[in-house]
Amino acid sequence: MVTARNTREDVIAAAGRLFAARGYHGTSMRDLGRELGLHGSSLYSHVTSKEDLLVAVVERGAERFEQSAEEALGSSDAPAERLRALIAGHIDVVLDHTDEAKTFLDEARSLEDPARRHIRDARNTYEKRFRAVIADGVSSGEFAPETDPKIATIFVLSILNAVERWYDPDGELDRAALVDEIWQFAITALTSS
Amino acid sequence: MVTARNTREDVIAAAGRLFAARGYHGTSMRDLGRELGLHGSSLYSHVTSKEDLLVAVVERGAERFEQSAEEALGSSDAPAERLRALIAGHIDVVLDHTDEAKTFLDEARSLEDPARRHIRDARNTYEKRFRAVIADGVSSGEFAPETDPKIATIFVLSILNAVERWYDPDGELDRAALVDEIWQFAITALTSS
Repeated sequence: MVTARNTREDVIAAAGRLFAARGYHGTSMRDLGRELGLHGSSLYSHVTSKEDLLVAVVERGAERFEQSAEEALGSSDAPAERLRALIAGHIDVVLDHTDEAKTFLDEARSLEDPARRHIRDARNTYEKRFRAVIADGVSSGEFAPETDPKIATIFVLSILNAVERWYDPDGELDRAALVDEIWQFAITALTSS
Repeated sequence: MVTARNTREDVIAAAGRLFAARGYHGTSMRDLGRELGLHGSSLYSHVTSKEDLLVAVVERGAERFEQSAEEALGSSDAPAERLRALIAGHIDVVLDHTDEAKTFLDEARSLEDPARRHIRDARNTYEKRFRAVIADGVSSGEFAPETDPKIATIFVLSILNAVERWYDPDGELDRAALVDEIWQFAITALTSS
């Protein structure tokens, strides 16, 4: 990455790598300059502040998740299949865009308003997609009537958001099997009573 | 907390509060001195480094979880009941010792060896307690035969470890109901096939 010709996109990608690896507070502008082979003043021609970069990385994470949910919901009308597609899409974002996903999930708490509020809204919108699918499954009788869609969504997203912490893409469990394990666990909890 | 008579325990408790609120990298020794009303040299009479404090807080978190698991496993011989007790105990640690639990869960990655290895071992030992209970339930026929105890443990712990992020102790769901929701979700996923 050491080149004098960094675009703003390169700077944001480098910031994502560092935020994901060390956390927002653990990353200094000096670290970022080193990662990019840039010195103080040339770095500031691309960005105004570290917060500006956090906003950019977290926004990209939010867009990835939102786009993934939209595609998933277009794939089927059946609640169980839609839930499976939401789970698969989430895993794709976490594994294919790990830096953005991790920064969105772990570092958004370091944002200040209005960016903080905006990200909270994006997260709520995303959660509501899961909640609506689960509520549909309850209404149609596919899922157990005592299911609380809000709480069930939190549990499914808790499992999904933890994947990045333990899953080894080079281990025994391939991506399709991972999606299947999570879906099976969730769908069994949702459909039995 | 502003007093000149801080014990080492006070210093560790203050470090836990700050690490939990801002992260390890987001906390400086200066912040800690301010929290305790101490200046540079008097702070260093209690601690040798920030890492030393991280080790102390994380070790306390590990001990709380381990103690909680031991008590839970003494409560019953039935796998489903033991799992319920493990879940209830974990929630108690997260809600009653939030700073230590959160620092153990989120900040242990900032440790260096040998403390890092020691905490990884403590975490593995704790996970194995859940895994053994789930494996017992599979052997006895109470849980579904296709259950993978290792993966099921990861899913249950993912749900438990996320509680601190969303649960509001002053909200509608009281602690007993929270334990019940998590246990119901897990036990349904484990017992149905």
